[in-house]
Amino acid sequence: MKKIGWDKNCYYIDGKPVFLACGEFHYFRVPRKDWRKRLELWKETGGNCVATYIPWILHEPVEGDFRFGDIPERDLEGFLTLCAEMDLFAIVRPGPYVYSEIVHAGLPPWLIENYPDLLLQAIDGRTFPESGVVSYLHPLFLEKAKKWYDKICPVIAKYCLSRGGPIAFAQVDNELAGIQIWLSGGYDYNREAMGIGREGGRYPCYLENKYRTVEAMNRAYSTDFAFFAAAEPFAGSPAEDGQRRRVKDYEDFYFTAIGEYALTLSGWMDSYGIDCDIVHNSPNPDSNTWVTETAAAFIKKGKPFLLGSDHYYTLNQDWAQNNPTPQYGVRMFYSFEILRLMGYPPSVFEMPGGSPSDWPPIQKEDLECCYFLNLAMGMKGFNYYVFTGGPNPLGIGATGEIYDYNCSVSATGEIRPTFEAQKNFGLFLKENSWLAAAERHVDFHIGYVKAYTRSAKWFGSEKKRFSNSAAWEFVRKGLIPCAFGSSLSPALADLESREFLEDLSKPLYIASAASMPAGAQKKAAEFLRLGGKIIIGPVFPELDEELNPCTILRDAAGAGPSGKLIAPWPLINTTGGSPVSGVMIETPLYQSPAPQGAETIAVLNPSAAHYGAPGGSPVGWYKGYESGGALIYLGAWFSYGLLTQGAMLRSFLFRLAGTKPLVECDNPNIWTSLFRSGDKSALFVINHYSSRARASVKIEKDRRVCFEKRDLILEPMEVKRIVVDQ
Amino acid sequence: MKKIGWDKNCYYIDGKPVFLACGEFHYFRVPRKDWRKRLELWKETGGNCVATYIPWILHEPVEGDFRFGDIPERDLEGFLTLCAEMDLFAIVRPGPYVYSEIVHAGLPPWLIENYPDLLLQAIDGRTFPESGVVSYLHPLFLEKAKKWYDKICPVIAKYCLSRGGPIAFAQVDNELAGIQIWLSGGYDYNREAMGIGREGGRYPCYLENKYRTVEAMNRAYSTDFAFFAAAEPFAGSPAEDGQRRRVKDYEDFYFTAIGEYALTLSGWMDSYGIDCDIVHNSPNPDSNTWVTETAAAFIKKGKPFLLGSDHYYTLNQDWAQNNPTPQYGVRMFYSFEILRLMGYPPSVFEMPGGSPSDWPPIQKEDLECCYFLNLAMGMKGFNYYVFTGGPNPLGIGATGEIYDYNCSVSATGEIRPTFEAQKNFGLFLKENSWLAAAERHVDFHIGYVKAYTRSAKWFGSEKKRFSNSAAWEFVRKGLIPCAFGSSLSPALADLESREFLEDLSKPLYIASAASMPAGAQKKAAEFLRLGGKIIIGPVFPELDEELNPCTILRDAAGAGPSGKLIAPWPLINTTGGSPVSGVMIETPLYQSPAPQGAETIAVLNPSAAHYGAPGGSPVGWYKGYESGGALIYLGAWFSYGLLTQGAMLRSFLFRLAGTKPLVECDNPNIWTSLFRSGDKSALFVINHYSSRARASVKIEKDRRVCFEKRDLILEPMEVKRIVVDQ
Repeated sequence: MKKIGWDKNCYYIDGKPVFLACGEFHYFRVPRKDWRKRLELWKETGGNCVATYIPWILHEPVEGDFRFGDIPERDLEGFLTLCAEMDLFAIVRPGPYVYSEIVHAGLPPWLIENYPDLLLQAIDGRTFPESGVVSYLHPLFLEKAKKWYDKICPVIAKYCLSRGGPIAFAQVDNELAGIQIWLSGGYDYNREAMGIGREGGRYPCYLENKYRTVEAMNRAYSTDFAFFAAAEPFAGSPAEDGQRRRVKDYEDFYFTAIGEYALTLSGWMDSYGIDCDIVHNSPNPDSNTWVTETAAAFIKKGKPFLLGSDHYYTLNQDWAQNNPTPQYGVRMFYSFEILRLMGYPPSVFEMPGGSPSDWPPIQKEDLECCYFLNLAMGMKGFNYYVFTGGPNPLGIGATGEIYDYNCSVSATGEIRPTFEAQKNFGLFLKENSWLAAAERHVDFHIGYVKAYTRSAKWFGSEKKRFSNSAAWEFVRKGLIPCAFGSSLSPALADLESREFLEDLSKPLYIASAASMPAGAQKKAAEFLRLGGKIIIGPVFPELDEELNPCTILRDAAGAGPSGKLIAPWPLINTTGGSPVSGVMIETPLYQSPAPQGAETIAVLNPSAAHYGAPGGSPVGWYKGYESGGALIYLGAWFSYGLLTQGAMLRSFLFRLAGTKPLVECDNPNIWTSLFRSGDKSALFVINHYSSRARASVKIEKDRRVCFEKRDLILEPMEVKRIVVDQ
Repeated sequence: MKKIGWDKNCYYIDGKPVFLACGEFHYFRVPRKDWRKRLELWKETGGNCVATYIPWILHEPVEGDFRFGDIPERDLEGFLTLCAEMDLFAIVRPGPYVYSEIVHAGLPPWLIENYPDLLLQAIDGRTFPESGVVSYLHPLFLEKAKKWYDKICPVIAKYCLSRGGPIAFAQVDNELAGIQIWLSGGYDYNREAMGIGREGGRYPCYLENKYRTVEAMNRAYSTDFAFFAAAEPFAGSPAEDGQRRRVKDYEDFYFTAIGEYALTLSGWMDSYGIDCDIVHNSPNPDSNTWVTETAAAFIKKGKPFLLGSDHYYTLNQDWAQNNPTPQYGVRMFYSFEILRLMGYPPSVFEMPGGSPSDWPPIQKEDLECCYFLNLAMGMKGFNYYVFTGGPNPLGIGATGEIYDYNCSVSATGEIRPTFEAQKNFGLFLKENSWLAAAERHVDFHIGYVKAYTRSAKWFGSEKKRFSNSAAWEFVRKGLIPCAFGSSLSPALADLESREFLEDLSKPLYIASAASMPAGAQKKAAEFLRLGGKIIIGPVFPELDEELNPCTILRDAAGAGPSGKLIAPWPLINTTGGSPVSGVMIETPLYQSPAPQGAETIAVLNPSAAHYGAPGGSPVGWYKGYESGGALIYLGAWFSYGLLTQGAMLRSFLFRLAGTKPLVECDNPNIWTSLFRSGDKSALFVINHYSSRARASVKIEKDRRVCFEKRDLILEPMEVKRIVVDQ
């Protein structure tokens, strides 16, 4: 077996940059007699790795009665041996949870039946035995799970790469926190596991570690708990800041506990000599930051950890789309950006290979579009879920007797049209493996504040202050699609990391809430002081991450406190430069008094002046600073839908920093993404609609056109790839 | 001008069945100098009618200062004269509300500024002045609105068809209740208008009319109000049946008040001699039944009234789809069915002509698919919103200075690609005007209970009983798409109307909740007694519409009370006939003890037997009755996604009534719809996906293939039309 490694840029096989091309292949579903044939088919698509769950329910159906290799469906070692023989890496996923449309989400049924104490508890004490939702850190659960790990880890260790086996990565548990949050509606409040109300319990210890004194905690919470162990989590929707802090702290504590659980599982693996890197799969783009504390815990322990995300577009009729729409593309984009900022080569550990539903159908053109779209948005590795399936053994299947999943290779081994999509994709990756190490071109940065992605429960929506979630929504539904629709290529910049301070040439758009961590405010202020260019709005932050007063950034800009502007049908006009008239934006609208010498660059359109502020009211200003830095404040935010919004964004970036898109596409519906490595470039031109489209693209540098393609015709759901060697 | 009429089947011009082909054309936006040219373009698409709002805000900008014809943008009469000259019918929509992306939703700004008392009040007393949400029945609002009608109605009357003008229909207000519900989050609780707490007020009178005695009301509500005028609406989510009845009654009262408002406006029109029929536009398929009481009020007054629905698929990135998906098709289908059952020729009073957003884009192929899809689902008339626009006059535009709406003819008169879609559609309708009077083929009926569509707030979701909303969801997301995906053509049958009793040949699938109106239960029982065939599930009703005990239907079937079956991962097997194995369904699952002599036809799949009922537990039975009637009870419901669900549905319909689809399509993703009139047939074959598809269709009657087309190739978003004369 070759060596496999990774860094923040990409994966490497024997030191050469590659795409991780993995396919989910369940030894317990695919008939053993068909393994070889189907693995050959997998390799035909360019696959270099397979992944499989190892379901606890299958190998310990009765407590204490462990079974391996007694029937073909339990011949894990035979499977791993074959993978090594066929030169395929393997990712093993031994749970405890696996989900995978297996009953009890893969936990053995005797677990909850016999040990109901280990169930998760909702804040009101309810448990969910039917849904099999356990409390990860309950000592009973850890005890039973360890016994499972005691049996499975030696097997995994035996087949690690270091020992000549195929196992390159091992995943702890599955979509951590997912089953708890989705099925209980909230976090784990199991008193035993979380130590609520118990001296020395995890929760009181977390609080003590954070606040040091009970007085400080009570001040933050507006409570009068006598000691840390008396603290109870806040139930319900928080209505004032003390309650908000309690909800936020419990959430952060909860995810810290998740991290402890993950590290515990990893520690068990260590103790059996499993020396491959640990991976994990966030359930979807909006859950990537659930794994923040877990990632930090692994770093602190000096243990390699690689987080990927799961990127389905439809698994049933209720999903937001039947095929890869631009909105799906936006979510994939910020998912990859978040993973990149966390230090990982952006990976899709569950890329659609099919669907558990027959309808809406998974279609070849859609799948191919999905794959190339993910690639265009920054993907460096993927795992098709699933590549192929087969009969569900021993009644463990939750969705039927056969796990066909409408894959490219059916449960009975037939090749479906979607196989061609996988082959096409694999061929492209093989012919362009240089792309794995290539960099995506970026025109400007959009500020990223991790806390904004995790504020829905404590600062999600509020009438008085512009909330964290609203700011993140401005990024997701406003700035990102607006950028792509205006030929601009954005990237997220982590405001709490120093990296963005190193590139002053790229202007930075900060979608800011009333709250922003002090560290982020400091770095943004430093960016300005170093000569950086910022657009910020719709408000200047006035609070830090604990909702305590903090105006570092506002002070650095010399601005006054942001206040709401009444304008029920807000249209704004930009002034100066290339003015844009009648840009529609969302309510609420804001104003922040400008520093001396600032120039008004946006005003309320007179037609908007009904029952509110008068037309001409200033809503944005531009200010140049002595440091060479410059700042545009715009008291508006928007959900992208209008070309005028794009024109406004472009005019501000140009005004601020002379920024123009490197790649210009004349069709605003057709989005592009450019990658470069040395002399090679790959331009992706994306038509994620159901109609044929025409678009012209050109690349202009220093007023010289160095690349142009006129009147490209793109088929429905086509992602054109233009690879250039120059 | 010709004569125009309508009945429950279709529209008629000079007695000949036609499609109403209307286009929204705002005299106040389209430049007057361009009216003729653009109306000619409209006629080129086959249009026979235009519709326009008459914005109150435009014609009475200052209270008491009415302006007509002083500027081109207010030249309503010039416009109507031109329509008559060009032989185009007109639908006028004088509000008071018009929405139409006009500030204050079209109300004059002085109205709310000067008369804040007339604002809607939420149940907690909050008002929404910024959003311009008035209380329709507030005496002040009616007073000011009447003054507007006093001025506009004589103009409308002058141009009615009966007087040689073009006006065929007049619409009262716009999307009634919409602005109130969307912007206040609930209904109107304005105490003055609704008479809450006032002797002789509307609300107490409604209650008295319903309950007769305060004691009866208090029994129903579990309250102790001293008299009717003391009754207060219930705030919050109801948790027990008394509260549920209070919420339901207020909702029904609210929509009755809506009806009173609509009738009042219509009465004013009458008094000025406006003699054309009144129309109205429900905002979307799920709001059609908001207009139930309004429709009844008009019928009671003997005044013609025609309700249509508004059928957009995307107006911004947050809509459920970017183009006409099958899920959109399902909503259009039940929208038309509901309108048909209400006695109207199904009409789309706002059919997408464009979008206020530039992105997601409105594309030619999508629009054409949308039009033909609506036709295939039963449409008999439409109004493109909008056909063409122009500058927003006098700052009344809420979304910009130009109302372009991305229509087929731009604000400056340029013809866009989507114009071709409208021409293609218009040409088809013209060449096939016989279709207007054609009947859609139906294989089986799905029971329709009006109350189920209006239960979200009072019996929307419940753990203990299968709720009304869940039953309606089973229809919308389960039975309808499953039918289409299985080559079956369904129609809704109103269980509270005698019509379905006249056709015993068609089996009837009743998606039943724990509650079902006594009248519906009686008719379903009668259907069985007459020899009809019923499938019912997942429960037998045990309550009537007032949530009082009622087991008429269950008793007629001879079944026992429905109880939940614990089965967290439910799969069922059908037995007998063409058995289907491992059909996945939703939880909860139910059982209802069968009458003597019933035969088990569905059981729990053994693999589902985890932490719950054992495998083999019966979940469905078949019973034949002496009357010749037969009933299948199935304790399961599902959201459509699997071919096994379709196979199960088909096997049950065949078992019950020998029903087979008349039209068989071999591709389950491709849906069909067949219309017939005399010797002519039109078969629609629908590919509402982004990939090309292949499908074979055939029509078999009495074991004889009378029509067949093999291997049709359908382009992305294509609706093939196969017209046959035989």
